[in-house]
Amino acid sequence: MSGTRGHFISFEGGEGAGKSTQIARLAEWLSGRGIDVVKTREPGGSPGGEVIRKLLVEGDADRWDGKTEALLHFAARADHLARTIRPALEKSCWVLCDRFADSSMAYQGYGHGLGPAFIQTLYDLVVGDEGPELTLIFDLPVEEGLKRAAARAGGEDRYEGMDKAFHERLRAAFLDIAANAPERCVVIDAGQDMDAVTAAMIAAVCRRFGLEERA
Amino acid sequence: MSGTRGHFISFEGGEGAGKSTQIARLAEWLSGRGIDVVKTREPGGSPGGEVIRKLLVEGDADRWDGKTEALLHFAARADHLARTIRPALEKSCWVLCDRFADSSMAYQGYGHGLGPAFIQTLYDLVVGDEGPELTLIFDLPVEEGLKRAAARAGGEDRYEGMDKAFHERLRAAFLDIAANAPERCVVIDAGQDMDAVTAAMIAAVCRRFGLEERA
Repeated sequence: MSGTRGHFISFEGGEGAGKSTQIARLAEWLSGRGIDVVKTREPGGSPGGEVIRKLLVEGDADRWDGKTEALLHFAARADHLARTIRPALEKSCWVLCDRFADSSMAYQGYGHGLGPAFIQTLYDLVVGDEGPELTLIFDLPVEEGLKRAAARAGGEDRYEGMDKAFHERLRAAFLDIAANAPERCVVIDAGQDMDAVTAAMIAAVCRRFGLEERA
Repeated sequence: MSGTRGHFISFEGGEGAGKSTQIARLAEWLSGRGIDVVKTREPGGSPGGEVIRKLLVEGDADRWDGKTEALLHFAARADHLARTIRPALEKSCWVLCDRFADSSMAYQGYGHGLGPAFIQTLYDLVVGDEGPELTLIFDLPVEEGLKRAAARAGGEDRYEGMDKAFHERLRAAFLDIAANAPERCVVIDAGQDMDAVTAAMIAAVCRRFGLEERA
């Protein structure tokens, strides 16, 4: 596939929606078709981005005010784009990214009430036309997602500690984002069993990029 | 002075222009007139801002690309405004800030060739109408400034390590910024002896805020 540009897919949704598992499965499925894949995540995904991530995921829930938090996310994103995503796409890799700018819109733009215009301005400035070609939004009722997330270990729990109303706003935000960008976003019911979620995801990828579901 | 809002003054200029000394002198002069003063600096000036500062002043000169660097500066600035500057002004304090957004414009907008529009968009988003009422620009020939800076100790030398042409662009940028905002900016010849610089600074402050030079 040398010479052709890769493709950029982002994975969005609330806590516990099973994104990591599905990213691993899609990576395996693509690799089986001879496609080079780069799995990455936000915030983070590059050495500088991961340093900024630490500032965002550790500490008290009110460590940063909304504007500062959004700016840190876009600083990490600028680094991630420049140092990881853009070079990978230029080498014909497909980039599978766990969260991207829609998370900033949902968490900071809607969830914290900073407003969508602030995030959109940063998006235009930092991402422009380099955003994902396909965004898979893993949708799940809030109670179910928080129950799953609580069952996991780990200290990166600043967002999970926020209240249920916040997570409800977040879910509504992702559905709103999907409704406003139907050419880019596909909502996947993450409440199904894992194999059904995988099948829905692969079907969406095949439709978007003109691949055959069976090799 | 309870009930009245304080005033916000920023201090700008290249390396070795003597800003720190002059800020200390102005703070002392204002305190002698019964004015409460908060001395602060950028990047930094608040607990969160200082954490972000470490990312900016340490490491290799090419650690961050231009966009990431500008976004980190504005993230630190948002925190600084929210947690230090705004509360101080509301308590009638005068805020004396060693560097502010003009440094982003000069270093990232002009110096690194990111372009002024990028920085201006971030300024409008983050600072809006909360910027300094007076900006004192300490101007010095580049050779002289670098000689003075080299004579100082300290490990925060990422900018000082950049080449002379960069510092020339920086100096021109500050003079350009001053020319474009004459109602806010006063250029002070920092090549004079220190007492003459102090006298010029105090005269500018008195003119701007209607104070008497002699108490």
